[in-house]
Amino acid sequence: METKYKHLLELLAEIKDLNAASALLGWDQQVFMPPQSAQTRAMQLSTLAKLSHEKFITDEIGGLLSELKGWADTKGYDSDEASLIRVVKRDYDKAKKVPTELITEITKTTSIAYEYWVESRKKSDYSIFSPHLEKIISLNIRLADCLGYKENRYDALIDQFEPELKTSQIEKIFTVLKLELIPIIGKIKENRDTVSDKMLCGEFDEQKQLQFSNELLKTIGFDFNCGRIDKSVHPFTTSFSSKDVRITTRFDTKFLPTSIFGTIHECGHALYDMGINPSLERTPLCEGTSLGIHESQSRLWENIIGRSYNFWYHFYPKLQSIFKEQFDNVPMFTFYKGVNKSAPSLIRVESDEVTYNMHIFLRFELENLFINEKLKVSDAPAAWNEKMKTYLGITPKTDSEGILQDIHWSLGSIGYFPTYTIGNIVASQLYDKMKKDMPDIEKDIYSGKFIEILSWLRKNIHQHGRKFTLNELVTRITGSELDSTPYLNYIKSKFTQIYKL
Amino acid sequence: METKYKHLLELLAEIKDLNAASALLGWDQQVFMPPQSAQTRAMQLSTLAKLSHEKFITDEIGGLLSELKGWADTKGYDSDEASLIRVVKRDYDKAKKVPTELITEITKTTSIAYEYWVESRKKSDYSIFSPHLEKIISLNIRLADCLGYKENRYDALIDQFEPELKTSQIEKIFTVLKLELIPIIGKIKENRDTVSDKMLCGEFDEQKQLQFSNELLKTIGFDFNCGRIDKSVHPFTTSFSSKDVRITTRFDTKFLPTSIFGTIHECGHALYDMGINPSLERTPLCEGTSLGIHESQSRLWENIIGRSYNFWYHFYPKLQSIFKEQFDNVPMFTFYKGVNKSAPSLIRVESDEVTYNMHIFLRFELENLFINEKLKVSDAPAAWNEKMKTYLGITPKTDSEGILQDIHWSLGSIGYFPTYTIGNIVASQLYDKMKKDMPDIEKDIYSGKFIEILSWLRKNIHQHGRKFTLNELVTRITGSELDSTPYLNYIKSKFTQIYKL
Repeated sequence: METKYKHLLELLAEIKDLNAASALLGWDQQVFMPPQSAQTRAMQLSTLAKLSHEKFITDEIGGLLSELKGWADTKGYDSDEASLIRVVKRDYDKAKKVPTELITEITKTTSIAYEYWVESRKKSDYSIFSPHLEKIISLNIRLADCLGYKENRYDALIDQFEPELKTSQIEKIFTVLKLELIPIIGKIKENRDTVSDKMLCGEFDEQKQLQFSNELLKTIGFDFNCGRIDKSVHPFTTSFSSKDVRITTRFDTKFLPTSIFGTIHECGHALYDMGINPSLERTPLCEGTSLGIHESQSRLWENIIGRSYNFWYHFYPKLQSIFKEQFDNVPMFTFYKGVNKSAPSLIRVESDEVTYNMHIFLRFELENLFINEKLKVSDAPAAWNEKMKTYLGITPKTDSEGILQDIHWSLGSIGYFPTYTIGNIVASQLYDKMKKDMPDIEKDIYSGKFIEILSWLRKNIHQHGRKFTLNELVTRITGSELDSTPYLNYIKSKFTQIYKL
Repeated sequence: METKYKHLLELLAEIKDLNAASALLGWDQQVFMPPQSAQTRAMQLSTLAKLSHEKFITDEIGGLLSELKGWADTKGYDSDEASLIRVVKRDYDKAKKVPTELITEITKTTSIAYEYWVESRKKSDYSIFSPHLEKIISLNIRLADCLGYKENRYDALIDQFEPELKTSQIEKIFTVLKLELIPIIGKIKENRDTVSDKMLCGEFDEQKQLQFSNELLKTIGFDFNCGRIDKSVHPFTTSFSSKDVRITTRFDTKFLPTSIFGTIHECGHALYDMGINPSLERTPLCEGTSLGIHESQSRLWENIIGRSYNFWYHFYPKLQSIFKEQFDNVPMFTFYKGVNKSAPSLIRVESDEVTYNMHIFLRFELENLFINEKLKVSDAPAAWNEKMKTYLGITPKTDSEGILQDIHWSLGSIGYFPTYTIGNIVASQLYDKMKKDMPDIEKDIYSGKFIEILSWLRKNIHQHGRKFTLNELVTRITGSELDSTPYLNYIKSKFTQIYKL
């Protein structure tokens, strides 16, 4: 059995290598690739996806998975062996349902669509992207039908990013959140003059922003020997092994928080990928467990830690030394309130912790409609704008600051957005537990010491890679399943103080 | 047959995609990869090489090649179809002789060896690299024995880079060159005071050098929509399609020619790759025909055009405007002589047109000894230094400026070096013909117009990709086979004028 297991690992390692190559091609496409190369790159990505899929769904792998199950289970649920067989079997059963030709078609379509999305967004011309979006939706419908579902076709797509989470469960959680958050947003609106972020708007040299980003990354614990930071239109994190994890960020010379919180957010993802146990290298477990858990890491660092008073108590003097002119006369508490300003924004990635979820509700609802063929792609901009009006009381002037703002659909990712709000919820659950386990956590942040925090995350989450599902992991750490109470308490307490509600 | 041919193209296109992915992984490794990632990258490259090899040597492809030969030949020797079958059959027969396991081993070994070479060179400690070199040599011996040869084991390795060229033929050409060049080097030494390059040594801001490199690339015809330029330890060109061709260069802030001529050299390679007929995209013909021909392109641009009086007549004012302080008082002719200074140098890539070939003779002779097991890796630094003394009268103080200077062996490339001198020879043969076909060529260069030159190269060489062998191509264009006379005439005439011999 040992020999058979090793053989399975070797087969899976080759697939992992192919996927790593695809990931590099994808990273390169967004960061460095010359524009004329999009078509050929699409073909290359499509070939790699096809080969990876073909090599995975073989009877040989299927046979080994069945044969090795009993043996692996004797090693214990948490063991590398049992976890690998369990998780890969789930992947295998799903993959078997999808014809290679559909995978190829999706990869080809999205790789080209990305380029059109960039152009479409730049020119704020929805008509450039919409035929591609239409194709992406119809391919996703085919994909969902192949994967199968019980309640809602959209479930099959969410399952790709957050295994076992259903549309109906998300709707339930989102309904509670809406009920609680909308009144808070209203109260903040009444007190809107309490907080200003005008000190964050101005002229901020890109090189200096990069310098500060690097400072943040180093202090938090990003290992530059195993990673790098670059620029891209939409910030993202990708990894080709736990020894090569890359983030991107973007710089807005007129608005400082874009790069700062973009960088911290992606760093949160990167620390997760860097912290996976080396024993899982080149296996399908060498990834985050789900996007919700991944997002809990980025949100924890970006918001709970990165927008806390204690965090800026440590970093503000450094920021002041880099941007003397801009911050010399701005008191620390004023700055802290500034980075926590809450106000309806048109742009998801630039919105605050309170209003952010509204953007997710909107996208979740549109995707649900798209996939159930209740909304046409051509009608989507109007639907988008209407929901923006309803949830946040504002309307985009152009599609660039409306429906074209996000990269996700261009990459074919439908079912991805809800994981952002799931991440917010999990981050608060984790932080409550961290405070219990590490009574000095506030003092650590205050002193710029992140090693204990990172160790806690590595021990409880990162090292496990994909071994456990979201619910397993959250229950194992906090004692309860997905629960929005800690998140709502956190929001209420923080914003009551900041906005004197 | 049409259908079968299309099917063959599809099979070959997938292999090409895999190879393009490998090339991107290789590029990334040298340009952007974080250091800790070397081991995993080695595994990834090894898997891709293995899959590519496995997918190529199938009986299906072998069968199609045999079956389609007659049909393809009816299309004419120059047709895409006949050329593809002819060239791929040659590749196939060679590939069949090499076990996949050896390919994997070579890729794994060289990918790791590269990192050790970087460190070894940095620390000037040969012992760090030598065990890897030893392994590379022994793998190359195995490779040569698999590929087979008639006269000399080294022939099998040269054939990988310059099909059908033999060690004995090269020895013949090199003997003539040595005989003719050594007296010229001697005469130049006597008149060494005629030329100085002190204006090229000093302080040259890297950003300004990059600005000038970009200016050169744009003017010559490098298409930034289909390519990019980056920095690496050793400059190189790579392509993932004719729409994505990348060069690297390096900047020495103390010596300007390093970046200028490095950039022009790689640009020559890149223009070749960019100019391949789009009908050959994603086929094995979408590459340069051989390294000798590739090098003829880089040498033509770097030396014959790039170090000519007319070239600098156009570019010197621009250079002066960027580096005012350094060149305001340097007359154009003094600068022209400076960039053509000939003096024995320890470093191959920084040596001049006359002495350059001596570096090649040395490497060619050492490789021939290595592969025939007549020189031990441990004795190689001493052999290197002795030959440097014999050919150029100088001795490296450290191995960094001696045996460790070149990347090639770390990449496993044995048999590659002679193609540099072959490139010099072909470049001169081509330029003689260009002067006949384009009587205004000197005036064009003088005016910074390169479009006619580029068109001529595209028409006569670039568009064909790998369709023809070196001898076929050179004969078809110039009417004669490989011939060192034009090269020797060019050297004599140019350096007689510069050094008043």
